[in-house]
Amino acid sequence: MYTNLSREELSALKTRLEAEYEALKSKGLALDMSRGKPSREQLDLANEMLAVDLGDYKSECGFDCRNYGLLDGIDEAKRLMSPLLGTGDLSRIIVGGNSSLQLMYNFIANAVNFGVSDEFEPWGKQKTVKFLCPVPGYDRHFTLLQTFGIEMISVPMLQGGPDMNAVEALAAEDAAVKGIFCVPLYSNPDGICCSAETVRRLAAMKTKAADFRIVWDNAYGAHHLSAEPCNLLNLQDECEKAGNPHRAYVFASTSKITFAGGGISAMASSAENIAYTKKLLSVQTIGFDKINQLRHVKFFKDYSGITAHMERHAALLSPKFRVVCDMLENEILPHGLGEWHKPDGGYFVSFNGINGTAKRVVELCKAAGVVLTAAGAAFPYGIDPCDKNIRIAPSFPPVDELQSAMEVFCTSVKLAAVEKMLAT
Amino acid sequence: MYTNLSREELSALKTRLEAEYEALKSKGLALDMSRGKPSREQLDLANEMLAVDLGDYKSECGFDCRNYGLLDGIDEAKRLMSPLLGTGDLSRIIVGGNSSLQLMYNFIANAVNFGVSDEFEPWGKQKTVKFLCPVPGYDRHFTLLQTFGIEMISVPMLQGGPDMNAVEALAAEDAAVKGIFCVPLYSNPDGICCSAETVRRLAAMKTKAADFRIVWDNAYGAHHLSAEPCNLLNLQDECEKAGNPHRAYVFASTSKITFAGGGISAMASSAENIAYTKKLLSVQTIGFDKINQLRHVKFFKDYSGITAHMERHAALLSPKFRVVCDMLENEILPHGLGEWHKPDGGYFVSFNGINGTAKRVVELCKAAGVVLTAAGAAFPYGIDPCDKNIRIAPSFPPVDELQSAMEVFCTSVKLAAVEKMLAT
Repeated sequence: MYTNLSREELSALKTRLEAEYEALKSKGLALDMSRGKPSREQLDLANEMLAVDLGDYKSECGFDCRNYGLLDGIDEAKRLMSPLLGTGDLSRIIVGGNSSLQLMYNFIANAVNFGVSDEFEPWGKQKTVKFLCPVPGYDRHFTLLQTFGIEMISVPMLQGGPDMNAVEALAAEDAAVKGIFCVPLYSNPDGICCSAETVRRLAAMKTKAADFRIVWDNAYGAHHLSAEPCNLLNLQDECEKAGNPHRAYVFASTSKITFAGGGISAMASSAENIAYTKKLLSVQTIGFDKINQLRHVKFFKDYSGITAHMERHAALLSPKFRVVCDMLENEILPHGLGEWHKPDGGYFVSFNGINGTAKRVVELCKAAGVVLTAAGAAFPYGIDPCDKNIRIAPSFPPVDELQSAMEVFCTSVKLAAVEKMLAT
Repeated sequence: MYTNLSREELSALKTRLEAEYEALKSKGLALDMSRGKPSREQLDLANEMLAVDLGDYKSECGFDCRNYGLLDGIDEAKRLMSPLLGTGDLSRIIVGGNSSLQLMYNFIANAVNFGVSDEFEPWGKQKTVKFLCPVPGYDRHFTLLQTFGIEMISVPMLQGGPDMNAVEALAAEDAAVKGIFCVPLYSNPDGICCSAETVRRLAAMKTKAADFRIVWDNAYGAHHLSAEPCNLLNLQDECEKAGNPHRAYVFASTSKITFAGGGISAMASSAENIAYTKKLLSVQTIGFDKINQLRHVKFFKDYSGITAHMERHAALLSPKFRVVCDMLENEILPHGLGEWHKPDGGYFVSFNGINGTAKRVVELCKAAGVVLTAAGAAFPYGIDPCDKNIRIAPSFPPVDELQSAMEVFCTSVKLAAVEKMLAT
């Protein structure tokens, strides 16, 4: 434990770490652990989809997928995506284009411009609108909210999901609190899964705003790394049971199943919410790319095709997560220099170092040729109040590069820690 | 000419037309001339694109099109689309997803929420925002404006495009007038092309609003039916020359080139406008479907591939337009019951009957099994002040069905005219 060391010992250690760091730096690395991008090998898994036989291009209802129409997508694509969305009722599903972020953006933009339904005032007409943001979280969710001037209130992530005591209190007391963003399975970046209790409390809690909504970004719903995957309680069912049937919007995509940016997205909510969404959607598009929807269905056949496919992804991703976690366990844990949740799925490891060192670690890594996500990126407004969190994205680099990158990372963490300890 | 007939003659004619109409009705037709959808044969022309060899899935800059990134699209797709956009400067182009309507929606939504640039106040912050709408026009443009509460001011379409005297006067005198929607080539529905003079005047006119913008929906830029296609002056160049470099936004898509809803879209504007657009776009998506962009490039190679492809479309469409125009010329013209512009491209024939008959014609057609676009659809708020305009969409039905549908149409036009004449 570094905390047990004297100033002299720390100084000597610093000299040693600096030499280690310089040696790593001199290798002239150019490695990237910054974004949750699938690797080439993962993308290769779905290449056959691009050459799949599309038959007569017709959907099961006889509609020519090459032509205009079917704003909400083809039924067989809805069925394919339904296990990720938590409803088998196809009338409550929209299958979209290549980006679930765009569907989420639309939801927020529509709520701001037009309200969450015809009954409610547009959020944009209200003086202040606030959203609860479990932190650390997904930077693009935060940027989206910030763009529309929605005030973000950070709520800590705990082992079972967002701190529900805080969420319940904030939602109950302030009518300006209009919603919460959640990545329920293998959260970005912590890899934490919402417990059944969290889901039940989110569904049932009293909210001062009648138009309080949950944006349930099930981005990693099929992205398990363990043989015993997390079992996520069905939020929509719980909302219905609790008498809040319109509270939940669930989103998913195949961006990290087939192709990142070449997949299909989908959303589900109550029948009323989906009807309202379709009404507004019809103003902005005649329909999404149904050929790509058909392509996905022909390739996967049904959800078991996705499950089998995701096992092949896991086989490629697991060794990478192992490198990261092993390095952290061997190099960081014994010295008491940080903590992290060991994820059973998703795309990230979220590292929490000593307070006030995250920026320095990212800077040291960068100077040594290893690009990390900017420190603070996982917090609203890009500000990590403790300057301790760094998101590690192991998916893209090959295992040997990841090993090199993690060596740089661990050395940087140690060096930054010693610098910090000596400075205080 | 029906106008030369006496009341007795009209009454006798009405009886005859009613019998004709009933005979047609008894055929039990189920035909659709309501939307500008390509036919199966047209869609078949691009089937090979769906099986095209995508090589190593890399763009010319070496980027893996299967992965995240390149928000503004791949360069080769920009180059492919550039002749439709009026600039060869790829930094001034964004290639999007399957829907140019979505790009236009984004432009309007962004202007409303955030302003047309950082310099200008959001339109939504202003008491009134107005748009000039050449009529008849594209119903989806109008719905888009109406959704955002933008007041629509109708401007008549003349033989060289929108009535520029009216446009100039309205734009010059009212700071609330923020823009105009135009389909410059083969306008929807008239099939009218903007003359060089119209383009120059649009580019150069004084506008009271400094943030006046032209939405130039070049939906039919390659959709010629004549051997001597319309030559459209380059709006962006003219805007630059006139000192209004940020005035024009040009949109295009391959929706009616490859697949309706399975194509790619694109937009172009000044470098500053595109940079601003990208900044806002990055909030809503990580990127568009680059695999489909690559697919288009591999299929067409370059713009000459599109030109050759569009000749095959024209070969399928020309006979259909001939049926419509011949029927109108033979059945309607001699009786003085309507007028229309004979289009050299595009997707529609815009029929103007006797005032106060359009709704009745659509009703009669519907009762006889022929679905037309709703009367008034080509006008803001769905209201044709003269109730005389009907949009005919000949592309989708086979020639023989179109012939039958046009028989119903012409009989209905005659019957509605006689009814009207007898009633007044």
